[in-house]
Amino acid sequence: MRAAPAVFARRLWMPPEQPPERLGLIAGGGDVPGNVADAAVEAGMDVHVLAFEGVTDADLLARFPHSFIRFDKVGGTVDALKKNRCDSVCMVGKVARPDFGKLRPDLAGISLLPKVIKAASQGDDALLQVLVDFFQKKGFRVLGAHEIAGDVLVEAGVLGSCRPTLADDIDITKGIEVVDAIGGLDIGQGAVVQQGLVLAVEAAEGTDLMLERCVGLVKGHGGVLVKLTKPGQDHRIDLPTIGVTTVEGAARAGLNGIAVEAGAALVIDRGSTIAAADRAGIFIVGVERPAGG
Amino acid sequence: MRAAPAVFARRLWMPPEQPPERLGLIAGGGDVPGNVADAAVEAGMDVHVLAFEGVTDADLLARFPHSFIRFDKVGGTVDALKKNRCDSVCMVGKVARPDFGKLRPDLAGISLLPKVIKAASQGDDALLQVLVDFFQKKGFRVLGAHEIAGDVLVEAGVLGSCRPTLADDIDITKGIEVVDAIGGLDIGQGAVVQQGLVLAVEAAEGTDLMLERCVGLVKGHGGVLVKLTKPGQDHRIDLPTIGVTTVEGAARAGLNGIAVEAGAALVIDRGSTIAAADRAGIFIVGVERPAGG
Repeated sequence: MRAAPAVFARRLWMPPEQPPERLGLIAGGGDVPGNVADAAVEAGMDVHVLAFEGVTDADLLARFPHSFIRFDKVGGTVDALKKNRCDSVCMVGKVARPDFGKLRPDLAGISLLPKVIKAASQGDDALLQVLVDFFQKKGFRVLGAHEIAGDVLVEAGVLGSCRPTLADDIDITKGIEVVDAIGGLDIGQGAVVQQGLVLAVEAAEGTDLMLERCVGLVKGHGGVLVKLTKPGQDHRIDLPTIGVTTVEGAARAGLNGIAVEAGAALVIDRGSTIAAADRAGIFIVGVERPAGG
Repeated sequence: MRAAPAVFARRLWMPPEQPPERLGLIAGGGDVPGNVADAAVEAGMDVHVLAFEGVTDADLLARFPHSFIRFDKVGGTVDALKKNRCDSVCMVGKVARPDFGKLRPDLAGISLLPKVIKAASQGDDALLQVLVDFFQKKGFRVLGAHEIAGDVLVEAGVLGSCRPTLADDIDITKGIEVVDAIGGLDIGQGAVVQQGLVLAVEAAEGTDLMLERCVGLVKGHGGVLVKLTKPGQDHRIDLPTIGVTTVEGAARAGLNGIAVEAGAALVIDRGSTIAAADRAGIFIVGVERPAGG
């Protein structure tokens, strides 16, 4: 039974019908962009990284050819993609929402501005969707990280050697209900629940900071972190992600484990993440989102 | 027009039909219990404070006769109330949810335990409701803070000299929608919204800590803190509260203002709070909750 999950993960991965030759990887912060870049190379793609100054991981920049882009210079981004002969685009990694008052858009950016302003008030997903539509209109294929790096997707079931107890299952169920609701309002993708009490809800601060404040909120030991996509979210952008940092944060907070959406959440550096969870005595489980979600 | 709010606040205050002679004030942390104690004295009541070790404000203990109680010794609490001839009870102030694994209930506590455990998994409100029912069954009248200290209630409209702009109103509307939804799930009573983006949602950490993490999340200046009761919540327990600390936290985060539920939120030390808001250039506004909420 231990081998089944990996097989399942591979089945979830659908190869793009016509593999792009050259990928423009718009890389935010964190480790995920590096994992996706490596997977793309493994799949036979050339990778050009489009990086944000001070945000994109330095190691990724050292390993791949790259251009620096800015959120407000979308015209410049298209130029960089064309100049480097990219035929597809993947957006991945953490990018803080910009201060709209300080943007100095280029011409293409200005033409996009009315849509951006409207979308911004509807939440992060709407904002990212404007960019997906923009790149598609410019003739690029927009790929999700999971279409390039299939094995980063979390499968259904337990990933490591620790399993949730019945009490954990009750907290997971409550957590799914909560995250589904806050996702529906485009607030966020995560929450921490202990003994039925919602200790923390993730909004703009991100999972790591949410786990940090749980250190003082968890009573004794117990509770779960739950992460799901938002209902109806485009899976090419902003998938919920876990990694070693998440496991360490959950352990420090005294949680029993982590539950993420099967077939939709990403696990960075799967081997190290599962090893860290096993070491910490923390479960990681891929769960189905509720029907209709 | 400036005098109108105070008049309105007084109209909202309904004096209890038969003023209790002696109030047992179960006092959690923060300044609100002191304000309620003073208001009770002003209304002609005797006050005996039931205090939590290391939680209840030292100044309140210095000023009023008191007994120490414990969350798990509800029998002891009833004894303290009877011994001090209290005929009514008011629960007010912050109390952290106890670690259920460490409770050592007395006999009355043990009889209450099945209800407490069931309620605990339904959230804070359910838990407090068990205590309200318990004290009522024991023959005590349970009063809300607002029934004793009418002028701590926030009225509809602007409280200080700063007013929300149209952009703020849009954020307030979004905030009301969000807080109403998370309140319906018994998650919490507050959120921070800027330009349509939900920066933070309050769960177990409380408003002050939520505002603290907004310092890094607010872009430039703007955004509002919204606090509402949970839909259907008993107004005798756990009303959303603001005070000077809230105003200072909002100012540090760079917010434009604070919107709280009119006729349901409490303002601690009204004069100082409004003065602090005016000094910081922050608005405070009492808002109606959505129909059906």
